[in-house]
Amino acid sequence: MHSGQEDILARVKHCLPEFAGGSVWLCGAGAGDAGLLTLLAANAIAQADCIFYDALIDAGCLALARADAALCCVGKRGGRASVSQAEINAALTGAARAGKKVLRLKGGDPFVFGRGGEEALALAQAGIAFRIIPGITAALAAASYAGIPLSQRGMSQSFAFITACDESGQLPHNINWPALAQGAEVLVFYMAARQIKALAETLLQAGRGADEPVAFVINAGLANQRVVITGLGQAAETAKAEVLASPAIIIVGEVVNLHAQLDWFAAAAPKTKERN
Amino acid sequence: MHSGQEDILARVKHCLPEFAGGSVWLCGAGAGDAGLLTLLAANAIAQADCIFYDALIDAGCLALARADAALCCVGKRGGRASVSQAEINAALTGAARAGKKVLRLKGGDPFVFGRGGEEALALAQAGIAFRIIPGITAALAAASYAGIPLSQRGMSQSFAFITACDESGQLPHNINWPALAQGAEVLVFYMAARQIKALAETLLQAGRGADEPVAFVINAGLANQRVVITGLGQAAETAKAEVLASPAIIIVGEVVNLHAQLDWFAAAAPKTKERN
Repeated sequence: MHSGQEDILARVKHCLPEFAGGSVWLCGAGAGDAGLLTLLAANAIAQADCIFYDALIDAGCLALARADAALCCVGKRGGRASVSQAEINAALTGAARAGKKVLRLKGGDPFVFGRGGEEALALAQAGIAFRIIPGITAALAAASYAGIPLSQRGMSQSFAFITACDESGQLPHNINWPALAQGAEVLVFYMAARQIKALAETLLQAGRGADEPVAFVINAGLANQRVVITGLGQAAETAKAEVLASPAIIIVGEVVNLHAQLDWFAAAAPKTKERN
Repeated sequence: MHSGQEDILARVKHCLPEFAGGSVWLCGAGAGDAGLLTLLAANAIAQADCIFYDALIDAGCLALARADAALCCVGKRGGRASVSQAEINAALTGAARAGKKVLRLKGGDPFVFGRGGEEALALAQAGIAFRIIPGITAALAAASYAGIPLSQRGMSQSFAFITACDESGQLPHNINWPALAQGAEVLVFYMAARQIKALAETLLQAGRGADEPVAFVINAGLANQRVVITGLGQAAETAKAEVLASPAIIIVGEVVNLHAQLDWFAAAAPKTKERN
């Protein structure tokens, strides 16, 4: 029996690239704790000379870094950039030019609402070698941990991921909302908790039903996970009453009804309040 | 320095659940080789008594199983079920009732076009404890490895994942195609290579432009990765000329144009034909 006795990274070594000095890896850390890291991501963290990481990266992920690796938080929170995108791009380029193995560790997936595309373009334009490592994006984590399949025979053959917050902090105005609302059976919104009032109104005007089920999924997979189910007509009120904060993933569609049967996370949680 | 010297699973043990006998874990293996496994998935494989796996699971993933684990392929290929869904459900339930630690290892993500929802419902209805472990779905792998961001400031604030193949093997007829085509800036299709003619016609009729860029991404991340870029108007012809087979991921939208600058995979590949 192998389990736990051999180094798992050594055993999949043939699948893991070598981190060359002078290059940058843009890597998704997944949305949650270190369990959602891919082996590629764990390998990247273990090899990096310096790691530029987002604010929401779990400490357990960074604990896999070399003891002598330089760790630098460049995170954004609540729309406020502590370090500007131009500064991040400059830091990545500068460290690579100094010959370092540079890891840009991003929450979720680098190409899903994380500006990974912009960072990659900056590297390409600077002539820096780079690699993109996908990650478990927040919508996938939310769906699995809340027990809400995004696709389901007879219910959902199409689903859309949408940011509810553009650069100005508002609901994006250049989305064709009536078409989107009618076109995708399931809608999954990122960064939506603060926009829920405008979002619900927009979807109702666009023809989604007031009784259509909505799930707010907060801290998916973590000990403080919350899943709040409501209807589109009362979603804004529910969000207010439940004091829902960002980052929440919001899922709209009939598949939300499956949560009642598939809520394995609550079933598996230790029943600390029960006594017997 | 830690890297490679300590067992990575032991170091994130606090994030990894214990696999209880009599339960089933529905787990995404990611879309590609073992590098895309999450630590949660690697932990699941290492602990399982029996593993029911899809045909497309990489052998490197299964190599992490215990030497005495029972491995059973229940895969589907090209739409043909070698084992029916009812038989898979019965096998999972039966093994769990026998007290085994049962792993259902699925390509990609279990809740994205993989019938994971149906399997979870069958387990819930049978009263079997289960867990869902998300995985890197094929669209995320394709985007990262092809250098095509799914979101990009000024280009894409919404993208949809759509199956191009319903139960009858045809393009789904109950999708509101005009709305979907106008609503989501980027469209990502699963199981689309065989449907490309009908798909391209449908999207053109629905108002997408003939010159809109389309990427076929085949075997993302593997040594035989291919990315073929074309326009929507000639997509069917291109697919025929290039002999594109399933499973291909098809990405439609302006972001496809970024591939030209962000094709890190081709840049990193060994130039076997170049000399000196």
